[in-house]
Amino acid sequence: MVGLIVVSHSYGLAKEIIKFCQEMQQEQFPIINAGGLDEETFGSNPLKIQEAIETIYQQDLDVVIFCDIGSSILNAQMAIDLLDEKIDRKRIVIADAPIVEGALIAATMNYGDSFQIIKDELIKLKEFKKV
Amino acid sequence: MVGLIVVSHSYGLAKEIIKFCQEMQQEQFPIINAGGLDEETFGSNPLKIQEAIETIYQQDLDVVIFCDIGSSILNAQMAIDLLDEKIDRKRIVIADAPIVEGALIAATMNYGDSFQIIKDELIKLKEFKKV
Repeated sequence: MVGLIVVSHSYGLAKEIIKFCQEMQQEQFPIINAGGLDEETFGSNPLKIQEAIETIYQQDLDVVIFCDIGSSILNAQMAIDLLDEKIDRKRIVIADAPIVEGALIAATMNYGDSFQIIKDELIKLKEFKKV
Repeated sequence: MVGLIVVSHSYGLAKEIIKFCQEMQQEQFPIINAGGLDEETFGSNPLKIQEAIETIYQQDLDVVIFCDIGSSILNAQMAIDLLDEKIDRKRIVIADAPIVEGALIAATMNYGDSFQIIKDELIKLKEFKKV
């Protein structure tokens, strides 16, 4: 199973994405809000993302990070760079996927040995046509 | 210029997407929340989407609709089917784009004669890689 991290520039947006994911999830697993500079201020903070990664990793779960745009992605990459070198980077991925649709798919499919399955589904999502 | 409609299954999620778009928008234009069955209940309602389309169309703006998953897309299509036949369907599009990333791009690029520009940018977004 994996733990999810949602990094929107907006804390409130990440919070609502997580609520929606929680409606869809089959199993219990952590979904952490690492969005916003704080609850009111738009932005993202690599230290907050790093802390979220460590929290999930300590539970022996793989980590999938969903970002919205621009600097939230750069800050997620910086957060991975900041991690202790003992942490296995192969267990952490920044999803190349839309923040809402990607997180919903991951939440829905997250049971059992799901890390590779979720990564494969997120690749398929790139080809998905809404209309 | 276009008006935007955000149709998430979650009213709260659509509300936060709109707040984020409002941070990015250069010009004044309507961004309507047509998400949720009501403010608390997940789902979507074609009549609510239809009303949002009519509100924007009456302001002589083109209409771009952003949906999250599954039935929100179907209900947006149904909303278009329900419109008076005098309404020009060519001025209304359901975006084949991620609900957050798509709405943000549309909000950012929406000035002047932007309908075709936004449609082109949303197609390019399909090819965009986050990582």
